[in-house]
Amino acid sequence: MQAISHYQELISNYFDDLELVKEPKNLYNPIQYILSLGGKRMRPILTLMTTEVFDVDAKKAIPAATAIEVFHNFSLVHDDIMDDAPLRRGNETVHEKWDVNTAILSGDAMLILAYQHFEEYEPKVFRDLAKLFSKTALEVCEGQQYDVDFETRDDVTITEYLKMIQYKTAVLVGAAMKMGAIVAETSEENANLIYDFGLNLGIAFQLQDDYLDAFGNPETFGKQVGGDIIENKKTYLYLKAIEFAKPNEKDQLLHLFSVQPNESTDKINSVKEIFNTTGASLETQKAIQVYTFKAFETLEKMKINDDKKSMLKVFGEKLMSRNV
Amino acid sequence: MQAISHYQELISNYFDDLELVKEPKNLYNPIQYILSLGGKRMRPILTLMTTEVFDVDAKKAIPAATAIEVFHNFSLVHDDIMDDAPLRRGNETVHEKWDVNTAILSGDAMLILAYQHFEEYEPKVFRDLAKLFSKTALEVCEGQQYDVDFETRDDVTITEYLKMIQYKTAVLVGAAMKMGAIVAETSEENANLIYDFGLNLGIAFQLQDDYLDAFGNPETFGKQVGGDIIENKKTYLYLKAIEFAKPNEKDQLLHLFSVQPNESTDKINSVKEIFNTTGASLETQKAIQVYTFKAFETLEKMKINDDKKSMLKVFGEKLMSRNV
Repeated sequence: MQAISHYQELISNYFDDLELVKEPKNLYNPIQYILSLGGKRMRPILTLMTTEVFDVDAKKAIPAATAIEVFHNFSLVHDDIMDDAPLRRGNETVHEKWDVNTAILSGDAMLILAYQHFEEYEPKVFRDLAKLFSKTALEVCEGQQYDVDFETRDDVTITEYLKMIQYKTAVLVGAAMKMGAIVAETSEENANLIYDFGLNLGIAFQLQDDYLDAFGNPETFGKQVGGDIIENKKTYLYLKAIEFAKPNEKDQLLHLFSVQPNESTDKINSVKEIFNTTGASLETQKAIQVYTFKAFETLEKMKINDDKKSMLKVFGEKLMSRNV
Repeated sequence: MQAISHYQELISNYFDDLELVKEPKNLYNPIQYILSLGGKRMRPILTLMTTEVFDVDAKKAIPAATAIEVFHNFSLVHDDIMDDAPLRRGNETVHEKWDVNTAILSGDAMLILAYQHFEEYEPKVFRDLAKLFSKTALEVCEGQQYDVDFETRDDVTITEYLKMIQYKTAVLVGAAMKMGAIVAETSEENANLIYDFGLNLGIAFQLQDDYLDAFGNPETFGKQVGGDIIENKKTYLYLKAIEFAKPNEKDQLLHLFSVQPNESTDKINSVKEIFNTTGASLETQKAIQVYTFKAFETLEKMKINDDKKSMLKVFGEKLMSRNV
């Protein structure tokens, strides 16, 4: 096994060398642009690492890892149109730098390009990868739709919310790891267990994202702290607060989430206080631990060496302490 | 072999029975809607027919035929956003009936759903189908981008124009037929020849579309005659007219294509006259014949029974006389 930085370098070098400057330029330049903005490359790193967990050279997993990253970037390009987002990774979004039509068409091409990377594999592996990819990609679309639908609903349950983040975020983490297992041609049992590991870690990761959005350190969080509160987003914290709140707290929270003041500091502080007094903060931290623990439990069931298990555990712990 | 109406019924029944009413409804209802609007189903019919040309039951090709039709409808949903089109098949477009974001996301899901239909086949056939599909889908995106680029260019050559319609329209006709050949597991030679047949027929079909848009019978053409002229579209007719025009005719045509009068009858008549006097009309008719002839030539090279050849020829002739 290698250090995480090794896999990061492997995939970054690959993206740097990717020859995407072809005709028509108005289709391919935006693709080159978004892929060159980098990001953590967390998903492809997981694919490469998983392949080595099952004793196969990570290099064999590069096409699958690339497909996952290209897909992830496709979803960012189209989501940014839908959210009317001006910035992505500190740079202009594709639909801002070009226009909406370009972002739609370049995104479509990226989804197709993602599938093409699987063509590097022989038929059986190709089929397994493409099948998992299609199932996952469709779930990501469903998750995005649930997220959009929830904006205009006031009866979203915790179960529904967990399903939404599972589809929108966690299934891709699970699939990234399972693809590594498929490339390594390990047992179906191992492949399914590593999927569950990634899925639960992905849910924990997203819940932590919800938590840090309110309570994170502005110096290290990377995004604007309080952003979800400003946008009245019904996160796990909010839904739990509504569930636990006394009548007067509930009224106050509902009122705070019905306004969008220009100066948001007071609103953010009031909401955070309710998150704390209702016990929603503590409950969210518990849920993060529950899903992280679930992930580590599946590790125990896997038929791999202990050093591999502890490596995956270290990765999981690093991810949850946000050093990755 | 069966009558074309047989294949049409086979695929229409399949789409009628397709169970797409699932959650989240805001993602799947628009898909169900656009697929239920029908259309000629020309591409899937070609897939089914081709499978029987190679002596395999058309039913075996239904998943591949469905993938082609779902993809075609995906491209319509996204193209209609880009063209800001209000109507499709006489009904509201998806982005009009719902909104642009819904049309983007439902379109994305359709592209993924198209791939999933190939999962009905065993690995080798699956891989061949998905590979051809990805290549073709990417070319369709490239063709759409060229079409967009050409709107703002005044130096488009005939070669570039032919490449654009080949990518945007003809490759999908070729691929629809080749998929039938792949499902039938015929020789690679036959599969490539039937692709060329479809490709050339597709180019002829699109050139005829250009011709009929100006000179078609308003009673039978189905679209508004003169629509391309109203929109100043640089079709084959226009590019040939510019090429052949005497200086004064060229000036007149350039002027006519720089304006968009409210009342367009005079403009349409003047442009059509230039198309005729320059010889562009005749040249377009010749090109249609050349590509139709090319298609029929590849038929001769194929190792199939004569009755199959004449059946495909009859279909090609019907298509070119627009009785299909």
